[in-house]
Amino acid sequence: MKPHLIVATVALALSGAAHAQFQKPEDAVKYRQGAFTVMGAHFTRIGAMVQGRVPFDAKVAQENAAIVAMLSKLPWAGFTPETEKIKSRTKPEAWMEMDKVRAGADKMMKAVADLEAATRTGNLDAIKKTFGDAAATCKACHDAYRE
Amino acid sequence: MKPHLIVATVALALSGAAHAQFQKPEDAVKYRQGAFTVMGAHFTRIGAMVQGRVPFDAKVAQENAAIVAMLSKLPWAGFTPETEKIKSRTKPEAWMEMDKVRAGADKMMKAVADLEAATRTGNLDAIKKTFGDAAATCKACHDAYRE
Repeated sequence: MKPHLIVATVALALSGAAHAQFQKPEDAVKYRQGAFTVMGAHFTRIGAMVQGRVPFDAKVAQENAAIVAMLSKLPWAGFTPETEKIKSRTKPEAWMEMDKVRAGADKMMKAVADLEAATRTGNLDAIKKTFGDAAATCKACHDAYRE
Repeated sequence: MKPHLIVATVALALSGAAHAQFQKPEDAVKYRQGAFTVMGAHFTRIGAMVQGRVPFDAKVAQENAAIVAMLSKLPWAGFTPETEKIKSRTKPEAWMEMDKVRAGADKMMKAVADLEAATRTGNLDAIKKTFGDAAATCKACHDAYRE
């Protein structure tokens, strides 16, 4: 399958809401960057509790995890074929290995869903474990596909 | 009350999750812009159905409204006092009238919650009405405070 077809498949597979139409390719890039930025900010807030930099608050962890889980489904729709040539931190390798990007996205969404489930238990050890697993899925794609 | 104190109060009032700490003022600006961008994209998708540009799909409307409702709570935390001097589309008036910005944000969040409730009924007329009301709250602040 051609990379472009795979991208379209990723967007379709994720959710009805995530299947975006963008007026300009630049809008798609801004959208995916915005989703990653907000997701990262809230993921980091859970990290601060996991790492003991701020006191653990089960409710705040749960609120942040719910935001992260919802946002985790979104950015992929912004990797439209038309955005390949637009300058961003996405490496050319991502477009050549979109099947691996897709697999990474799936892993990330699953790991984040597990993290959200853990925050609903309020068990800090479970949150630590699932946070670490989720962080590893972020890092895997960043290392491979982000400049 | 000084504008800066009001900003802090806005951030605190919205939710535990939205009460953000940012490492750099630039991070706060990127965060609020990202939240607005993603929110706008999903709001627009409901608008396309409301305006008949795409077929009405109750499930897709509801998914998009849920994303908009969650995101509506977030950007305000990015208007930290430290970001006043950072170039963005926020007009100086916003910092001088932060009490009005806060009131506008409250109205918008309420209107978006009403829209989300309407999408849960699946009643297109109710969705049209609440979509229009929500769009008016967006426009009010954009006209006054966005370049």
